[in-house]
Amino acid sequence: MSLLVVGTLAFDSVETPFGNRQNVLGGSASFLGMAASYFTPPRLVGVIGSDFPDEHLGLFKERGMDTAGIEKSRGKTFRWQGRYDHNLSNAQTLETQLNVLEHFDPKLPPHFRDSTFVVLGNFHPNLQRKVLEQIKKPTLVACDTMNYWIDKTNAELRKTLEHVDLLSINEGEARMLSGEYNLVHAAKKIFGMGPKHLVIKRGEYGALLFSNGSIFSAPAYPLEVIRDPTGAGDTFAGSMVGFLAQQNDTSSNTMRQAIVMGSVLASFVVEDFSVDRLRTLTMDEIRLRFAEFRSLTGFEAHGNNLWSQNQT
Amino acid sequence: MSLLVVGTLAFDSVETPFGNRQNVLGGSASFLGMAASYFTPPRLVGVIGSDFPDEHLGLFKERGMDTAGIEKSRGKTFRWQGRYDHNLSNAQTLETQLNVLEHFDPKLPPHFRDSTFVVLGNFHPNLQRKVLEQIKKPTLVACDTMNYWIDKTNAELRKTLEHVDLLSINEGEARMLSGEYNLVHAAKKIFGMGPKHLVIKRGEYGALLFSNGSIFSAPAYPLEVIRDPTGAGDTFAGSMVGFLAQQNDTSSNTMRQAIVMGSVLASFVVEDFSVDRLRTLTMDEIRLRFAEFRSLTGFEAHGNNLWSQNQT
Repeated sequence: MSLLVVGTLAFDSVETPFGNRQNVLGGSASFLGMAASYFTPPRLVGVIGSDFPDEHLGLFKERGMDTAGIEKSRGKTFRWQGRYDHNLSNAQTLETQLNVLEHFDPKLPPHFRDSTFVVLGNFHPNLQRKVLEQIKKPTLVACDTMNYWIDKTNAELRKTLEHVDLLSINEGEARMLSGEYNLVHAAKKIFGMGPKHLVIKRGEYGALLFSNGSIFSAPAYPLEVIRDPTGAGDTFAGSMVGFLAQQNDTSSNTMRQAIVMGSVLASFVVEDFSVDRLRTLTMDEIRLRFAEFRSLTGFEAHGNNLWSQNQT
Repeated sequence: MSLLVVGTLAFDSVETPFGNRQNVLGGSASFLGMAASYFTPPRLVGVIGSDFPDEHLGLFKERGMDTAGIEKSRGKTFRWQGRYDHNLSNAQTLETQLNVLEHFDPKLPPHFRDSTFVVLGNFHPNLQRKVLEQIKKPTLVACDTMNYWIDKTNAELRKTLEHVDLLSINEGEARMLSGEYNLVHAAKKIFGMGPKHLVIKRGEYGALLFSNGSIFSAPAYPLEVIRDPTGAGDTFAGSMVGFLAQQNDTSSNTMRQAIVMGSVLASFVVEDFSVDRLRTLTMDEIRLRFAEFRSLTGFEAHGNNLWSQNQT
């Protein structure tokens, strides 16, 4: 299997109650790729400006990524500046500079076109579709989007969704896209738009997977230390799809494992700023926390006498 | 084992987007007792006015409850009127009439004093403590409270908490009581106040159990039909403690099962107004949904080759 990752490459300036960082490596493709790289070497597609340091590209290569799809444009790299308050659940965007992103027209290197697993970061739906048109026969297309595109480019997004297998959005976006408050109803509506698998991200409350006729509820790991939530959703999606690509399987149990794996990597990335935690994270740490996630929801339903008395 | 349930008996008038009901059976003791009765026959302690119909007392007796601890006072029964909007997560209280509750001084019938499991509904902490003083040697004391008591009667509540084994509160209350936003930190602070087990209720997001040195995350069942969330928390606590009393055990796995059982019963009670769903609910339905809860979080972590490549 082979994994294509498409998204933004950015400089982030972030302020949280636990510190701040200026012009650090950010963007959906950075988090998606770094997270996925623990499972499958990603092929990266995105655009950078002439100010993007070789050091970041070096990091991507170190992590086994194929950076042939990163286009270097004249001008400045996309920049995002945001601030989180103490509840850490919503970023307040202070400034966005699209820069080279404004005229980005993604073109896949020929050897990227046979990719079987694809993850499309949050982006203009027309650009997402343009990427898909260049891929021969994907096994699984995963896609993220946000309220802005649901609101401003709804028709375009709906066209893209026809080609998406797995949609990964947050609760508010699921409600907005479907027009349904109840998430079970929302999932049914969204299945009618194309996707066969729906992941509803609920931040500190974990995630729900609607797939293969069943619902899976993945918990979030109750963390003592959260420094910067930036990139948690992309880290989640990247490791989820990276894991699916590694397993080359989308059956029910593998999907469930993938969601938990996504939650595991997301629980690490928020421990530090930017992608910094993913610079040092080891497979042993991942294995240990995966086991902790299992014990977080596990219980035995032993005994036939569990409810032996007082029945109606 | 024997189970004591203390709380309010009330007439509720409730308005939700799915209908409304006037002067229906409500109050924490009603929900706690009805839910617990599926597992252990509860002994009920509370106060009613002369307007409380025999029909409701008949229902309690039918469900195996000992109503000897229900005091009938001259005057009117406690009344609560509330409204929920479409997100169903917070009730807006329109009116509260304390009535006979105002001068309630709980006295336990002598044969209630040997109760081993106790669940104290949300109440003035001094009244909760007054009940506890009349019990000989409880195995487990569970207690609910709310932001009002945390704010207005903090010193009294702290005295009560010294005698509480299991505290069941919602997220906001846990933060308010502990002064900690992070729930892991909040749990540590609350353990210092007396309780050995802490259940943090998160509504549609399930519940967290901090107990025996570990954390358990119980999901909420994604329901298609929610008509009235009134009493969900008490139903949760009642079935949880009723189950623990039936098992006569508070070990880690039994606590986890009890939390899931609480979530199961709570998922039923919100399907209809008042305690109505608990009038018809059968053990077969409970068993089936318990199994569905298991499948909601279950997955196999089979295979040693789960993450065999691309390790760092």
